[in-house]
Amino acid sequence: MVGTIGIDDIETPFEKARGVLGGSATYASIASAFHAPTGLVSIVGEDFAAERQSLLSDRGIDLAGLEVAAGKTFRWGGRYHANYDDRDTTFTDLNVLTQFDPELPASYRSGGYVLLGNVDPVIQLKVLDQLENPELIVVDTMNFWLDGAPGLVREVFARSDVAVINEEEVRLYSGCYSIPQAVERMMEGGLRAVVVKRGAYGAAMKTHEGWFFVAGYPLMEVRDPTGAGDSLAGGLVGYLAREDKVSEQSLRRAVVHGSVLASLAVQSFGAEGLAAADPGEIDKRYQDFLRFSQVDIERSN
Amino acid sequence: MVGTIGIDDIETPFEKARGVLGGSATYASIASAFHAPTGLVSIVGEDFAAERQSLLSDRGIDLAGLEVAAGKTFRWGGRYHANYDDRDTTFTDLNVLTQFDPELPASYRSGGYVLLGNVDPVIQLKVLDQLENPELIVVDTMNFWLDGAPGLVREVFARSDVAVINEEEVRLYSGCYSIPQAVERMMEGGLRAVVVKRGAYGAAMKTHEGWFFVAGYPLMEVRDPTGAGDSLAGGLVGYLAREDKVSEQSLRRAVVHGSVLASLAVQSFGAEGLAAADPGEIDKRYQDFLRFSQVDIERSN
Repeated sequence: MVGTIGIDDIETPFEKARGVLGGSATYASIASAFHAPTGLVSIVGEDFAAERQSLLSDRGIDLAGLEVAAGKTFRWGGRYHANYDDRDTTFTDLNVLTQFDPELPASYRSGGYVLLGNVDPVIQLKVLDQLENPELIVVDTMNFWLDGAPGLVREVFARSDVAVINEEEVRLYSGCYSIPQAVERMMEGGLRAVVVKRGAYGAAMKTHEGWFFVAGYPLMEVRDPTGAGDSLAGGLVGYLAREDKVSEQSLRRAVVHGSVLASLAVQSFGAEGLAAADPGEIDKRYQDFLRFSQVDIERSN
Repeated sequence: MVGTIGIDDIETPFEKARGVLGGSATYASIASAFHAPTGLVSIVGEDFAAERQSLLSDRGIDLAGLEVAAGKTFRWGGRYHANYDDRDTTFTDLNVLTQFDPELPASYRSGGYVLLGNVDPVIQLKVLDQLENPELIVVDTMNFWLDGAPGLVREVFARSDVAVINEEEVRLYSGCYSIPQAVERMMEGGLRAVVVKRGAYGAAMKTHEGWFFVAGYPLMEVRDPTGAGDSLAGGLVGYLAREDKVSEQSLRRAVVHGSVLASLAVQSFGAEGLAAADPGEIDKRYQDFLRFSQVDIERSN
């Protein structure tokens, strides 16, 4: 799991939290580790608390790819609108992230299931250059890179198998408003699957075999949407690693498992809540998701 | 199918159409008639063209409950925003709708599957008073009545089985933002099921057995969203009448069939396109919908 580790300040219409554990690689690694052995590739500063490293290693996450650099850990602040989908960035202190130039541990380079989390596409390409015969490459990005470096993002996508992306970003990437049209255009670049994140409405996946849809888990209360997409992507990759098979059906199960972990991530501030999730609850929600769309084809009367 | 018949002027960001066939009972009846014998209860003016009546009767819709009154047919104008979910009403000429005081044909009063389309709740209550032992009552409404006559809407809901309603209306009715919370509150009034319309994201149904979700059909192009909700409600009621059984599973199949008809309604301006839909395409989309959420529970490896 390649991406950021950060310390976040979050505001929602109802609550505020300061200094919670965030970052794309954080959420993705914790989500993935519920399903498969997971290694994290990221960078933190010397101020990153030992108990936060322990939180990750206690989840079984391998930290051989975590660099501790002189300086401060990346910090980010976000303020959510009433719909919990739109947010404003209140501040970004990149700090040690400007030095992020990952060198993968030797054991990570060959085979494996890789998530290129949302970081500079220059870094994503450097990681791709270090991989040999990966089983699957899943990539995330954000509008900042689609605006600023669309050519590099295109190159990353061309070398990846699955993109995880939200609706606004699909539109930005493809230049058309209709999501089905925009996704078809994205897939012309060679992707095997595009997973569209739809916030409270769940996720949609397009493959060459067609569309797959999974609803958002109906939660009585959402506390902090941060990390939902990273948890989905991490859970998806971790689950595929567990099955160690990439097929239409394993991808579908993986999107559902990713959605389970996203639904757990948004029920508390920061990644600590996801780390404390009960495996029994994860299984229960997976079964719930299957029931949410279950239709008997035959009439029962 | 009780509701309005109107003549609509529609603007989308890309197209305009004037004088197309609209109204809640129009879309609902056409949708329902694909599945079951359907009677329409509404009112038009003397200006309502004979070929428009023929369009309805040619679909097999019984017009014994259609009153032709002195005056002009209801007219409505709407302008859609870029997202196709939000719209502004550009004008409303109620015309003969102010005289709408439906008296049900005798054959409609006993048993049967009833849709109370979006009209004044006073009229919905008058229809309820004429019914004897209905199999199922499905009710639609809109924010206008929820704002202006919430007590009457509550009374209609208390005497109905299933409410079809959009997210904004659920929130307005229940006074809370969380859709799962708002729907639970709605069901305390005695409803057996609440079907939440979610535009391009499809529909969600809550029953005492749990949630059911169906995605929106992935259309390359949406031309006119008008009537999507009415088509969903009409298709749902028509399908239940065809099965003549109300169970968790028949309700789920009915929501899918309603979603099929909604997806056809939005591909052209006015109800004429839905009326011309190919039954083969209806069957195909139903099968597509089942595939969109199909997950093999067992691993296949």
